[in-house]
Amino acid sequence: MNKPPLQPSFPKASMALFERAAKVVPGGIYGHASPALTVPGAFPYYAVRAEGCRYWDADGVEYLDFMCGYGPIILGHNHAGVEDAAAHQRRLGDCFNHPAPVMVELAEYMVSLVDFADWAVFGKNGSDMTTWAVQVAREFTGRKKILKASGAYHGKDAWCSPGHGGLIEEDRRHIHNFRWNDLDALESWFKTHGEQAAAVILTPYHHPAFGDSEMPSQEFWPTVRRLCDKHGALLILDDVRAGFRLHGGGSHRFFGFEPDISCYCKAIANGYPISAALGRKEFKAAASRVFLTGSYWNGAVAMSAALACLQTLEKEKAIEKMAAAGEMLRDGLLALASKFNSPLVISGPPSMPSVRLAHDDNFERTQEFCAIAAREGLFFHPHHNWFLSVAHDGAAITESLRRAERAFVSFKSTVS
Amino acid sequence: MNKPPLQPSFPKASMALFERAAKVVPGGIYGHASPALTVPGAFPYYAVRAEGCRYWDADGVEYLDFMCGYGPIILGHNHAGVEDAAAHQRRLGDCFNHPAPVMVELAEYMVSLVDFADWAVFGKNGSDMTTWAVQVAREFTGRKKILKASGAYHGKDAWCSPGHGGLIEEDRRHIHNFRWNDLDALESWFKTHGEQAAAVILTPYHHPAFGDSEMPSQEFWPTVRRLCDKHGALLILDDVRAGFRLHGGGSHRFFGFEPDISCYCKAIANGYPISAALGRKEFKAAASRVFLTGSYWNGAVAMSAALACLQTLEKEKAIEKMAAAGEMLRDGLLALASKFNSPLVISGPPSMPSVRLAHDDNFERTQEFCAIAAREGLFFHPHHNWFLSVAHDGAAITESLRRAERAFVSFKSTVS
Repeated sequence: MNKPPLQPSFPKASMALFERAAKVVPGGIYGHASPALTVPGAFPYYAVRAEGCRYWDADGVEYLDFMCGYGPIILGHNHAGVEDAAAHQRRLGDCFNHPAPVMVELAEYMVSLVDFADWAVFGKNGSDMTTWAVQVAREFTGRKKILKASGAYHGKDAWCSPGHGGLIEEDRRHIHNFRWNDLDALESWFKTHGEQAAAVILTPYHHPAFGDSEMPSQEFWPTVRRLCDKHGALLILDDVRAGFRLHGGGSHRFFGFEPDISCYCKAIANGYPISAALGRKEFKAAASRVFLTGSYWNGAVAMSAALACLQTLEKEKAIEKMAAAGEMLRDGLLALASKFNSPLVISGPPSMPSVRLAHDDNFERTQEFCAIAAREGLFFHPHHNWFLSVAHDGAAITESLRRAERAFVSFKSTVS
Repeated sequence: MNKPPLQPSFPKASMALFERAAKVVPGGIYGHASPALTVPGAFPYYAVRAEGCRYWDADGVEYLDFMCGYGPIILGHNHAGVEDAAAHQRRLGDCFNHPAPVMVELAEYMVSLVDFADWAVFGKNGSDMTTWAVQVAREFTGRKKILKASGAYHGKDAWCSPGHGGLIEEDRRHIHNFRWNDLDALESWFKTHGEQAAAVILTPYHHPAFGDSEMPSQEFWPTVRRLCDKHGALLILDDVRAGFRLHGGGSHRFFGFEPDISCYCKAIANGYPISAALGRKEFKAAASRVFLTGSYWNGAVAMSAALACLQTLEKEKAIEKMAAAGEMLRDGLLALASKFNSPLVISGPPSMPSVRLAHDDNFERTQEFCAIAAREGLFFHPHHNWFLSVAHDGAAITESLRRAERAFVSFKSTVS
């Protein structure tokens, strides 16, 4: 049977906006939302409205949202409890000359949630915290060298960004990489650089873009912790993406280890702009010596949203719900993949699955599949882990799988 | 007459909060709000509510706000027009997988306001933009060296932060400094480093902390512009603090020059967290090659607030109003200073005055005066430029001067 090839749909309102944007914004849309990163024309460009686990693009098309703003939306868009807490603070005020009392409450609450932590600080970007944590490690140790996993994302800053434009050699002079789970490489790096090692910075599991997620081996975290202790280096946990999605006490609890400083951002305030770093008592003095401030960093509304969000996560057993929904989605997608003989590889925790077609090393076929899924009203990312929220209930997953089945049918026809 | 010496008042609720904070936050309060930066115990620690040009601390004390959140509050706290625009977008959604249409509108509007600019990008911190602009200059020129003015603040990032903790030598290897208005030093730097010069980054006038503000000499901007052109370096304007406070088209218009890239933040959204960089067409391609993203950077609420704020500034002739209020304040304070024979030095533009006591090089007497003013319900910063807003009307300035007169009386008594 002769089927039409996959065609970009280029919906009218979105493309009109993008044409205007291209005139006044470098690249039209930049960063993680760049259409160049998915399939130009086949994915939504602009979002106009969102509610729960759904959003609508500039052309009025509805999508089931499996990216959740690339992570921040953990309770679903427009969550009443978080919005009420934010609105209450907003009526009082937001951007003051001083912190609001809620900063103290939030710091106390986060310190109570995160077992190893004695203190907390807050910023706006995840990068604000990962970069600052690296500086705290350098301040504490008086050393320069930082070890990270190849391909890991720790933010936009020059020492670690995935970009190359505008960087100079000095930006990464003391940044070293090893392959995730390669404990021989880790041992060997410490053997060579141990006396200069300020910190190892790692995500709780490996979730690179354009790659499968990789869980730590049984020996991974005990070995990292032991080597850091042995050589006097700090262990920084970049929990920006996974934090409070896997365990209510931080992702180190999920994997059973203790970092020295952990960085949080995305899921802590259901989309309100705030990030946090928490650390052990031993590093509090060094932390207080590393410059840390920003125009909006006392913003009380985002702190109120964070407090409400974190309390709601605990009260609503969010972790369990997201895990159950993620398992339902994973099992359903795998069953469909098997039925349509289009095998999928699904890696990572169920609530943050990385999904691709099997035998698709360059992600091209996965992009095609996700583009077809987009036409069915599913925002499935072709090369980044997805995110589920508490708003993804059983009915939403059932509907998603129904839409996915239609996508598999269309996809199958493109290769038959 | 025997007068009691100045005593910190240590108000109860504020100190109770601070004691709690000290347990869970390095330094208790960090960054620009740190009480260590003013006079511990004599200034407010926590803000609980704000309205217009006033705010209330944790002990219910009212202050006339001459810092405006260190700049962002340009229309006054809780401005109805900005809040309405933000609330409208918030009901639709904020943190999406994509930009909202308002991003295009905001980029178009800012490009229309700023004469030399052809494009705009947005971040969360002022630092996000100044650091990125430096990278764009390095990307465009293929050179490393950056020249800045000694003592100028360009943000929290390692290449320029006023801190030292956690920094390594490589962070500032290619960052050079010259004294503001020292054109011989400027010429000489270009003579030595011209072929390696990526950019000169400058604020529109010099507004260092712990120092008088300094206006550019007649020859300053023409010389900077000429030398940048001659040597192929970019001229980056850090208009984070002054932007849209001196001129509705950006502070370069106030001083009559054209930069290549300008960075904005504080005043553009009346406290909603957003920053922006605007640039000339020649640098758009380089700009699109420098990595630029963050978890909350598509945040539509802050963009809606920015659009409403900038439009309101224009409509309400905010610049003129703030200048008039600033002149009234300056003239009134100088008259009081003269009356009480406690001469003041007031520098910088009237709407962003830097105020200190004469013959007070270490700012100690100024701190004492500002501590007394705080007891009278005036938040006067002892070593940072102040900010006025549109909400500082004639009545508020009159009331401020009445309170200031009482402060001068008390201050006089501490030295008599």
